[in-house]
Amino acid sequence: MCRWLAYSGSPVRLDELLYRPANSLVLQSKHARLGAETTNGDGFGVGWYGNVPTPGLFLSTEPAWNDRNLREIAAQLESGHVFAHIRASTGSAVQKTNCHPFRHGRWLWMHNGLIAGFPAVRRELTLAVDPLLFPEIQGSTDSEILFYLAVTFGLEADPVAAVARTVGLVEEVGRRHSVVNPIQMTVATTDGETTWAFRYSSEARSRSLFHSVDLSTLRHQYPDNPALHVLSDDARLVVSEPLGDLRGAWREVPESTCIVVHGGREELRPFTPVAPATAAADGVR
Amino acid sequence: MCRWLAYSGSPVRLDELLYRPANSLVLQSKHARLGAETTNGDGFGVGWYGNVPTPGLFLSTEPAWNDRNLREIAAQLESGHVFAHIRASTGSAVQKTNCHPFRHGRWLWMHNGLIAGFPAVRRELTLAVDPLLFPEIQGSTDSEILFYLAVTFGLEADPVAAVARTVGLVEEVGRRHSVVNPIQMTVATTDGETTWAFRYSSEARSRSLFHSVDLSTLRHQYPDNPALHVLSDDARLVVSEPLGDLRGAWREVPESTCIVVHGGREELRPFTPVAPATAAADGVR
Amino acid sequence: MCRWLAYSGSPVRLDELLYRPANSLVLQSKHARLGAETTNGDGFGVGWYGNVPTPGLFLSTEPAWNDRNLREIAAQLESGHVFAHIRASTGSAVQKTNCHPFRHGRWLWMHNGLIAGFPAVRRELTLAVDPLLFPEIQGSTDSEILFYLAVTFGLEADPVAAVARTVGLVEEVGRRHSVVNPIQMTVATTDGETTWAFRYSSEARSRSLFHSVDLSTLRHQYPDNPALHVLSDDARLVVSEPLGDLRGAWREVPESTCIVVHGGREELRPFTPVAPATAAADGVR
Amino acid sequence: MCRWLAYSGSPVRLDELLYRPANSLVLQSKHARLGAETTNGDGFGVGWYGNVPTPGLFLSTEPAWNDRNLREIAAQLESGHVFAHIRASTGSAVQKTNCHPFRHGRWLWMHNGLIAGFPAVRRELTLAVDPLLFPEIQGSTDSEILFYLAVTFGLEADPVAAVARTVGLVEEVGRRHSVVNPIQMTVATTDGETTWAFRYSSEARSRSLFHSVDLSTLRHQYPDNPALHVLSDDARLVVSEPLGDLRGAWREVPESTCIVVHGGREELRPFTPVAPATAAADGVR
Repeated sequence: MCRWLAYSGSPVRLDELLYRPANSLVLQSKHARLGAETTNGDGFGVGWYGNVPTPGLFLSTEPAWNDRNLREIAAQLESGHVFAHIRASTGSAVQKTNCHPFRHGRWLWMHNGLIAGFPAVRRELTLAVDPLLFPEIQGSTDSEILFYLAVTFGLEADPVAAVARTVGLVEEVGRRHSVVNPIQMTVATTDGETTWAFRYSSEARSRSLFHSVDLSTLRHQYPDNPALHVLSDDARLVVSEPLGDLRGAWREVPESTCIVVHGGREELRPFTPVAPATAAADGVR
Repeated sequence: MCRWLAYSGSPVRLDELLYRPANSLVLQSKHARLGAETTNGDGFGVGWYGNVPTPGLFLSTEPAWNDRNLREIAAQLESGHVFAHIRASTGSAVQKTNCHPFRHGRWLWMHNGLIAGFPAVRRELTLAVDPLLFPEIQGSTDSEILFYLAVTFGLEADPVAAVARTVGLVEEVGRRHSVVNPIQMTVATTDGETTWAFRYSSEARSRSLFHSVDLSTLRHQYPDNPALHVLSDDARLVVSEPLGDLRGAWREVPESTCIVVHGGREELRPFTPVAPATAAADGVR
Repeated sequence: MCRWLAYSGSPVRLDELLYRPANSLVLQSKHARLGAETTNGDGFGVGWYGNVPTPGLFLSTEPAWNDRNLREIAAQLESGHVFAHIRASTGSAVQKTNCHPFRHGRWLWMHNGLIAGFPAVRRELTLAVDPLLFPEIQGSTDSEILFYLAVTFGLEADPVAAVARTVGLVEEVGRRHSVVNPIQMTVATTDGETTWAFRYSSEARSRSLFHSVDLSTLRHQYPDNPALHVLSDDARLVVSEPLGDLRGAWREVPESTCIVVHGGREELRPFTPVAPATAAADGVR
Repeated sequence: MCRWLAYSGSPVRLDELLYRPANSLVLQSKHARLGAETTNGDGFGVGWYGNVPTPGLFLSTEPAWNDRNLREIAAQLESGHVFAHIRASTGSAVQKTNCHPFRHGRWLWMHNGLIAGFPAVRRELTLAVDPLLFPEIQGSTDSEILFYLAVTFGLEADPVAAVARTVGLVEEVGRRHSVVNPIQMTVATTDGETTWAFRYSSEARSRSLFHSVDLSTLRHQYPDNPALHVLSDDARLVVSEPLGDLRGAWREVPESTCIVVHGGREELRPFTPVAPATAAADGVR
């Protein structure tokens, strides 16, 4: 089990996102509240969009709660689009190439969950990745394969459709290998402008996912809360678990749902995987 | 808070001690049961006595649960005298020079607890270390200073007296700096033949400490338990918390007590710090 | 470029092999003499055979010259069969899963050199690995793929034939991708009893490789050299570069040669890759 | 031996300073040209001034040539005041708390060289550090002690006088311990606005030190060199060794000299240590 956070809005210092909140992501690295696993100490990663086209990545195999470089960088950097992830390995090695977010061009990707029976299906899923993308695979996680499958299926053109086909393929391959519930995931991906987040699992009992509500409403409700005045009106967070206890501040993303966040607006859509056969019948790729 | 284990007896493979038990030390690195802090992920260390005079040390800043080298080494090495420690930093840096056990010649030392108000008293305690030992100080922890104070006060000649004077000094210096309860500790030290372990705190509410009972009794009681047949009759463990749930296998070491383990016999003695004034009046050093 | 060492003979302490020699492997990690690249600071690994069936592995991403754990372990461990490798990455990540030696069951494998144009041929070579072995691939190096190809082609039954087919495949795939000289290698592999080492490159200008001569002859020649009395008569070293300057102690392994070391005897055989077509025509697998 | 770089001028991206030059600092980490030691692979550090009062620090124990996080951060961060240092340990542990630059408030400090006989004089020099600063000492290097001695002697008020007294003390203590040439150093320190760099050694054969010349002159001389157009007129570099081969671009800082860089102007002054007795006689602190 992992935990993650996706922020978009006016530029904020990273420590406001990662360290300041009562139930901050760095705190969750030691004591998560909602996960099956309370410790997320198998490395972490932060991706952020700055002044150059490619987002920056800071990845570490140390537990986030210990990493002094993270604290330093978070105190210096501002960004209006931030992905952060703390990892609890489900078996693969603790190494930077296994840390999220993963990156392809301007795109970032992070995942909480797993592909069940991954050793058995890894080869077949790896083969389904576009051969041109194959050399980019650096690590050994299910999450990275998931990412490159999504890119293979057109993430950059239509993220929701690409993820639907990715999940459809994982379920199809898994079931062929007698895996009962092939996938468990919350996933976030972004091109630096829009964020797409998905909550889905084959068993329909997915890892938790929440999004923040419109801040102007909250400020009206809690006029004296200083934390609410750091962020702009269009600031939005999508998170594995709420960063604080403020009543009304967080809404759960429903099962089998995709949430699209852009410019302070969020849209929720039902998410349904698309099986390979269907995809073929529809004439896609 | 940290957790530690001290083993003596016939040579056993290290993985029998570190990985096999139901509540193994490696497991405690992620989920300790008895401590104030459940995660001990700020590095670890193992010291063992082999065929050369100096004990070996394997120290790592990674969480023990993740370290593949530890698993490899533990599967290969046998020793009849093992110290192992998992760390939860109380503030000092996560670096190998801060990992326990510490070593001086044939001696090892490990500590769970803290010197309260250490930043305030660190300089004075450091100055009290024998100048000849000063160059050996490599890290920045209270535990290492405690060790070199004990060596300064004659650890190698009379461990109990040396620790009594060390604790007496720490309490005296702490109180002079208005620290209410200057020390909290369970400590183990060994020369490779005898193990001395101490449970003490200024407030008389010390970290937990247990020792294993005579194995022959246990085997009689549980004739079918295979774990009890790996170890020799003289095998003894002193541990921060029991490694399993076997009723009757573990006895708590009382408050303010020193336990001396040698050749399958353990002796418990009351432990009382010796204040510097008293030490001076007695004409010691 | 990397450097490696393969030892077999009576059990010796690892530090005799890794630190003691004048041009020791640890020294070569900072200042190799014969390589194109003088610094081999991108991690290292040691594999050794002890009292359990599976060989132990100690892998680290730190430069060998810095690693205090290596020094500690080398001072404690004795083994009669040791593989050691220092790495200079040719591009892939510095992580433990990319450190040599690689292991499969009782077998170890280490490599100096590279598969030219690896990003272009990586996918095809990866697909040629036996699907049952695929889940064992943990890293992202050409060397590991080389190993699993050799296991796929029967390393455990006939190492020389398996390596010949592996190299034949790599050359065939490389040439199909317009790679001029597809492979450059010295490779060592062992089952813990026999060592097979190969010196080969498509361009017939291979990385350096040497083996030690019969020690009894050397002792006769240098009766006063203490280093020659630590090792048994059947001790043999195969190394990327000589560990010292003793005249007559080292012989270069010729180009396109396999050396087989077993029980103090070495045998040199010409090594010729076997192209896939030939292999198929011969009815092999 | 270490290598360092101090930049001041208009804000530039860090990779322009660290990776772009022909003989960049990152390249020097593997193959320095002018030092006694060609490999500076024992960690590195970067300090930079951004939008918050305290400068940021990124410290790593990995060789700089390998560190992907350094490459990422350097591609994202801009700063008008940068200190960067690559380390070759002269004995103390490779850990982040031993990496330069060291920081105290807004001040940074980095050092190439050593205090000779440091184990013998370490205690006495440590005691000379202001007790209020003592808790800030985190590592075990001579360079950090040098820094806190300078702060003790008034670095923040008068850097040149403070360093003169620091060096005077080190030489006096060293000589009392029969150390022949107690200090060897190039040092740089800054408050984020002015940079002071020192080239000095007791034996008057100091490590190399260079500063860049006025860029407008160079641009006139090399109108077609694009590298010269990235930097502003007031940009200045002080470096252990030139970053390129451009004739006329670099001037050696003479022996026993302090160079003060502020706003595109540099001033060179003779540097003479001040012995403690003299300091006392002058009535200073």
